[in-house]
Amino acid sequence: MENDNTLRRLKTIEGHLRGIIRMVEEDAYCIEVIRQIQAVEAALNKVSAQILEGHLNSCVITAVQGTNKKERERVLKEITEVFEMSAKV
Amino acid sequence: MENDNTLRRLKTIEGHLRGIIRMVEEDAYCIEVIRQIQAVEAALNKVSAQILEGHLNSCVITAVQGTNKKERERVLKEITEVFEMSAKV
Amino acid sequence: MENDNTLRRLKTIEGHLRGIIRMVEEDAYCIEVIRQIQAVEAALNKVSAQILEGHLNSCVITAVQGTNKKERERVLKEITEVFEMSAKV
Amino acid sequence: MENDNTLRRLKTIEGHLRGIIRMVEEDAYCIEVIRQIQAVEAALNKVSAQILEGHLNSCVITAVQGTNKKERERVLKEITEVFEMSAKV
Repeated sequence: MENDNTLRRLKTIEGHLRGIIRMVEEDAYCIEVIRQIQAVEAALNKVSAQILEGHLNSCVITAVQGTNKKERERVLKEITEVFEMSAKV
Repeated sequence: MENDNTLRRLKTIEGHLRGIIRMVEEDAYCIEVIRQIQAVEAALNKVSAQILEGHLNSCVITAVQGTNKKERERVLKEITEVFEMSAKV
Repeated sequence: MENDNTLRRLKTIEGHLRGIIRMVEEDAYCIEVIRQIQAVEAALNKVSAQILEGHLNSCVITAVQGTNKKERERVLKEITEVFEMSAKV
Repeated sequence: MENDNTLRRLKTIEGHLRGIIRMVEEDAYCIEVIRQIQAVEAALNKVSAQILEGHLNSCVITAVQGTNKKERERVLKEITEVFEMSAKV
């Protein structure tokens, strides 16, 4: 169910990106193209946050409540990694 | 010519995004999906910078060297706006 | 102990920021000031990630392993929120 | 005059950062610290944009209207560089 929502959003973004490609093909104004690219990035950020939310409420809970310490550490480390990366993109 | 390079990059990104949609359809690991989305965002940032560079070296030079003060102000204002937005996406 | 490391980093950043203030007082080149501000932001991102890592390995583990469902949801919701915000700053 | 405004903002941010250091010293809740750091980053982004705006309306206009092509290219190149970096911090 959650996947459906994520998929729908990603396909909307794909459509948006195709629109940007058409804009460039038709020589649209540069700044307008940049603004549309920034809108796509904002939408991607929202999808990422949504996916992370689902991940926290499933895999992360399972791993943290589980008995495998190594697995727990791995799962928590990944959260820090995507958080750190999200500031860079 | 410059447009060709931008188009090629945008189409590569579109292919990357379609790959991410497939990953979600096939229930790939959430964190891996987030990482791929972040890679797409990094690639979009590069395209934006490339488009801005072309814009600075054409429209901006024309506007700043031109006699229309209002047009010059508009063009410079836009640069600040996309700069400010780029920090938010 | 972890706090000591965070504090040391934050104090270094404070020193960096004071240096930037001096640069502006002495009329340094604008682009150089912007670059230094961006360096401060990159350093702040690293401290944030470090604080989040400590948080995941303490409070989050406690909350997720605890019996209070509402508290667990709150703690996980916060992670998504700071993740989403980190893309915007 | 413009410098005064930039300085005032930077000093406000410095005060905010000192407040964050106190929060860490007093063992404040991690997520609250991260939120405050993100607020500082948002404020730094605004100062950067303000500095860039001043730069565009002074140095950039001078360089672009000037006869030194190399200088003009350098000044425009810097804009692209800080734009590209702003997406990463």
